Amino acid sequence: MGMGDRLTRMEPDLTALDAYLDDAGVDGYLLDADSEVSDQYYLSGFDAPDPFITLYDGDTHLLFPRSLEFGRAKRESRAETVERYVDFDHQSKVDEYGPDEAVSHVLADFLAAYDVDSVAVPPRFPLRTADSLRERGVDVSADTDGIVTEIRATKTETEVDYVRTAQRANEAAMEAAESLLEASDIAEDETLEVDGETLTSERVKEEIEVTLLRHGCSLDETIVACGADAADPHDSGSGPLVAHEPVIIDIFPKDKATKYHADMTRTFVKGEPSETVREWYDLTERAMEAAFDALEPGATGADVHDAVCDVYEDAGEPTLRDDDRTETGFIHSTGHGVGLDVHELPRLAPNGGELEPGHIVTIEPGLYDPAVGGVRIEDIAVVTADGYENLTEYEIQFVV
Amino acid sequence: MGMGDRLTRMEPDLTALDAYLDDAGVDGYLLDADSEVSDQYYLSGFDAPDPFITLYDGDTHLLFPRSLEFGRAKRESRAETVERYVDFDHQSKVDEYGPDEAVSHVLADFLAAYDVDSVAVPPRFPLRTADSLRERGVDVSADTDGIVTEIRATKTETEVDYVRTAQRANEAAMEAAESLLEASDIAEDETLEVDGETLTSERVKEEIEVTLLRHGCSLDETIVACGADAADPHDSGSGPLVAHEPVIIDIFPKDKATKYHADMTRTFVKGEPSETVREWYDLTERAMEAAFDALEPGATGADVHDAVCDVYEDAGEPTLRDDDRTETGFIHSTGHGVGLDVHELPRLAPNGGELEPGHIVTIEPGLYDPAVGGVRIEDIAVVTADGYENLTEYEIQFVV
Repeated sequence: MGMGDRLTRMEPDLTALDAYLDDAGVDGYLLDADSEVSDQYYLSGFDAPDPFITLYDGDTHLLFPRSLEFGRAKRESRAETVERYVDFDHQSKVDEYGPDEAVSHVLADFLAAYDVDSVAVPPRFPLRTADSLRERGVDVSADTDGIVTEIRATKTETEVDYVRTAQRANEAAMEAAESLLEASDIAEDETLEVDGETLTSERVKEEIEVTLLRHGCSLDETIVACGADAADPHDSGSGPLVAHEPVIIDIFPKDKATKYHADMTRTFVKGEPSETVREWYDLTERAMEAAFDALEPGATGADVHDAVCDVYEDAGEPTLRDDDRTETGFIHSTGHGVGLDVHELPRLAPNGGELEPGHIVTIEPGLYDPAVGGVRIEDIAVVTADGYENLTEYEIQFVV
Repeated sequence: MGMGDRLTRMEPDLTALDAYLDDAGVDGYLLDADSEVSDQYYLSGFDAPDPFITLYDGDTHLLFPRSLEFGRAKRESRAETVERYVDFDHQSKVDEYGPDEAVSHVLADFLAAYDVDSVAVPPRFPLRTADSLRERGVDVSADTDGIVTEIRATKTETEVDYVRTAQRANEAAMEAAESLLEASDIAEDETLEVDGETLTSERVKEEIEVTLLRHGCSLDETIVACGADAADPHDSGSGPLVAHEPVIIDIFPKDKATKYHADMTRTFVKGEPSETVREWYDLTERAMEAAFDALEPGATGADVHDAVCDVYEDAGEPTLRDDDRTETGFIHSTGHGVGLDVHELPRLAPNGGELEPGHIVTIEPGLYDPAVGGVRIEDIAVVTADGYENLTEYEIQFVV
């Protein structure tokens, strides 16, 4: 296993965490996770593939099971102190209690060393760690949304630049994909061809992913979905691409140097879109405009989502707001925060809270029906003091 | 967000889970996670980016917050039943209890629908979900290692083939990297050059990752570490590669179609390695042989790890077994299971349990010292009825 490339890390503003601990009346905030869990990476400032402990009590303290990460953590992390199980008599505790229970004694001694008797933890904190600390007399309470996750929603200028850089790479990849579609010919069976070879979802994804790699980005998945595949927003697509049908391309890379993401979707048609798809596309562009008109500090994510639902419902399209069982129409939320996670707070959804300057969000209305296909358009923007700045420079083009 | 490509999924053998539930005297096993958590993907047979609930009570039942995944889950998952919050009067519960508490009432009703009053959960099950279910009177207990994680350690023939396929891609990537080193020249400042350009860790990583993409694999990270970087097993490496110093290349890709991983490490020197590095390399090859000699069903992971520690300690090299505070020498475990996770059970480590046919493990001894650099050699093998089969076909070559 290996770690992320080094980066000039931004220092998080944790005053909201200090206030949270005061209000909750607890001694500290505790994490037990590897740094794939973004709260852990954000609070510890350290990148490790295996779970470790972070305690925040005004200062940041790290605890590692082994010595392996010790030296690097002292060099790279933002913690005031870095310790190991061995620093808390781990072996003698193993001899006395066995390997499993020993860990809870090490953790309890670690907390006691900082006079921490009570901790708040995120909602997805590991149950076994919590129960074992409770057995040792530590008060462990899970918060609702995760205060660190909430803090992460508001980006510094440095973080906005990280996302902007990832978005430039994203646009280079979208350009490579659109160029493939433009360069394609329509075969007799209406599948697309490039240089006499059938153009598949897999081929376009490979072009996108190689382009992202060349730009220092990695990604788990890309969506290049045509026809019925495109009617399922979570179907990544497969097989030949077909003329006259919408092709949804949704790219959400992670910049390997900073670990921050970008996110963008375009829908293209090679050939002649049907009347329905044309209407869907126009409606979705209008829904996107309505969302951006509503996007400003003080508005809620629910307001922005409602603006999109209004456009679709006024045109007679089904939405989850109107029918919470529908599987066609506008069947997802309007958008989500983007940062260390590609899906994070805030929500542009029925339960979306108040928007603040520094929130980075996607705006991604769409319509879906297996009988027709799917249309989705997605930009990424940052909420500013007086509205928003669209971080997306890629044009919105439909027929290629 | 998008999902993994479709695959011909293998059906897990869950008889051990049935036995576990009987022994524990609980009604079911419960997961609350997205399918990045491999236990969730394995038990549900479903790939989703957002957390969902899986209940196993002899049959498998899925519960989704929204309708978005509903259709695809019915088509693609291995579950007997697929339901949504809305199927348990979610909205009326939100009106009565508020959005947060409503979820715990939905979950409790979902469990009650299958007469489940008590559940076992994995150690990293989300605390908030557990506490909220306990408030509803459900008995929730975390198991130690995670029974599904334990079951996943033993691979079917299909899973072994998945890893074998990923390993072939891994070897193509290693070949591309080794070829770059072979083709390089040594500049006056002893950095490596290719076509007059300095050969960096980043350049070799890009070559590796593009090769993996062309072979249908993705990866989060690759290690190409030279000099002091190589002395830290979790430093991925950066900057120019230097002649006469060991370069550790550790590649652990995921096959995108199957989600199964491979893992391999080689250490190369361009030019003339120092005497110490030569000794380390020979020692590490002998440690590897000793590990494979010990690798068979009935032996424990601890036995295999001890065989490696014996070789190193007999040669006077520090090990964590000998000194649990050392930061030089052999400072990690001998190996780990590989499958849906690149790090999974079994452990080839001091606490490693009994090995069984079908276990896929890495053997990766190594020596590290910032003053010297690092040497690591890693193969991947499957434990068989009468020993093991090495799944690695890539030769072990040192000086290129």
